[in-house]
Amino acid sequence: MVVCSPMNGRNFRQLLEAKWEQGKFLCVGLDSDFEKIPESAHIDGTRESLVYFNRAIVDATKDLVCAFKLNSAFYEAHGDEGWQALRETIQYIHEVAPELPVILDAKRADIGNTNNGYAAAAFDHLHADAITVNPYPGREALSPFLERKDKGVVVWCRTSNEGAGEFQDLQVGGEPLYSIVARHVAEKWNENGNCALVVGATYLEELAEVRKTVGDMPILIPGIGAQNGDLEKTVKAGKDDRGRGIIIAASRAVIFASSGADFAQAAREKATALHGAIKAALVQ
Amino acid sequence: MVVCSPMNGRNFRQLLEAKWEQGKFLCVGLDSDFEKIPESAHIDGTRESLVYFNRAIVDATKDLVCAFKLNSAFYEAHGDEGWQALRETIQYIHEVAPELPVILDAKRADIGNTNNGYAAAAFDHLHADAITVNPYPGREALSPFLERKDKGVVVWCRTSNEGAGEFQDLQVGGEPLYSIVARHVAEKWNENGNCALVVGATYLEELAEVRKTVGDMPILIPGIGAQNGDLEKTVKAGKDDRGRGIIIAASRAVIFASSGADFAQAAREKATALHGAIKAALVQ
Repeated sequence: MVVCSPMNGRNFRQLLEAKWEQGKFLCVGLDSDFEKIPESAHIDGTRESLVYFNRAIVDATKDLVCAFKLNSAFYEAHGDEGWQALRETIQYIHEVAPELPVILDAKRADIGNTNNGYAAAAFDHLHADAITVNPYPGREALSPFLERKDKGVVVWCRTSNEGAGEFQDLQVGGEPLYSIVARHVAEKWNENGNCALVVGATYLEELAEVRKTVGDMPILIPGIGAQNGDLEKTVKAGKDDRGRGIIIAASRAVIFASSGADFAQAAREKATALHGAIKAALVQ
Repeated sequence: MVVCSPMNGRNFRQLLEAKWEQGKFLCVGLDSDFEKIPESAHIDGTRESLVYFNRAIVDATKDLVCAFKLNSAFYEAHGDEGWQALRETIQYIHEVAPELPVILDAKRADIGNTNNGYAAAAFDHLHADAITVNPYPGREALSPFLERKDKGVVVWCRTSNEGAGEFQDLQVGGEPLYSIVARHVAEKWNENGNCALVVGATYLEELAEVRKTVGDMPILIPGIGAQNGDLEKTVKAGKDDRGRGIIIAASRAVIFASSGADFAQAAREKATALHGAIKAALVQ
């Protein structure tokens, strides 16, 4: 499917590097669980409320971040209304902060031509600048994403959940699976320089190991904030030789910092604190 | 999110077993790529055309199949319109063939509470009876799916693509990763008896091995038809001790059997041939 995208000319990695240059490494995750949205953001229907809430969070934090991330699950839960809210939120971010890359956190993966549909959805329909993908079917299957040179392909490498090790820690000739995924992405998948990885802040040793493997590839790091990863140690383990390379994702801890009418101000305060803490950790 | 579902009382495994009892093992995949839909099915907009095409295929094949499968990628490619078409198609199948289980082929996976959103989307919003999931984050992460006792959780085990082996063939203590996934699902994930696996027909030895590991667990088998897997050998490798256990998925080969105005009739003919060939292979 060929769609004429108004987003031509944008390049995920370049947008990200420009924000890193400005000393910004925080990524606010708009995991806008409708059940948790403050009462004061409930206007009209589900779609309107989600967009109203997201716009307020975007306005309150856009000068503090290197990217916004939207997890599709929280939108799909509301079907086509949710998809509209997802699309409208991304459109709003492009309007008010065109210099910020938008990551669709969708963990997609299928085989061959099917991924054309997911790539079209993420890049041509929703106009995201990057998408998270699941490595299980391998590089050949994921080529419809990898071929989109200007779009970021953020590969799930080490997940932040408690049970992450069930498969990811399996030892293959003395090397754990997650490390093999990182190595393959760095050595074989990244011909277009558009790859990145997801590694949870809840596994610091693994994060440090992955960084050694992948050079200056961007690493999206969830798990600080609500999941209690240690921010200072995370920054140290995750940064590249240039003192960059990290996208520190915080979602619930920022967007639901207050359940009151001051939710946007509270989100800004939390984001400001995180931004400051990341900068402090980077210069240590 | 609690949604009052009109689909209460349906159980994926029971619906499937009832169809197997009737000698039906074919699953028609409504991978309705808009670009490939015959001219004669183009009515009004994208959504209307997708639903019109799907309804015609469902009507033409519903007495020949054990399930319908819809791959979400082909719908998401059209954003909220696509989601509406996906939902309306599933609703139509429930209306005209309430005894048939509907599988949402979405290969979803995230961690923890995020999967609540995907489960809500698949089961409460779209009203699918089963969903395909990606095993990478492990059982603990996927529990929001596994806990839905009446819903099928169809775990991607061995993918049908050429590059499937990049990670899935990695040897862990002498056993390939896909085999470990199959074993974990059979031994540790299936407390509610609602698990199934996806194993491609393009890898017959692997299919036979997985069958030995998982007893009578349903295996969804794509890769015959357009991907050229051998149907007779696939049935023999995939069937369980009861001569059941298989969901033979054919998508493009059936739904795009003709690009003319006779597309529904051509789909019926192709489905009839596949249904007959599966039955013949099962009694050999």
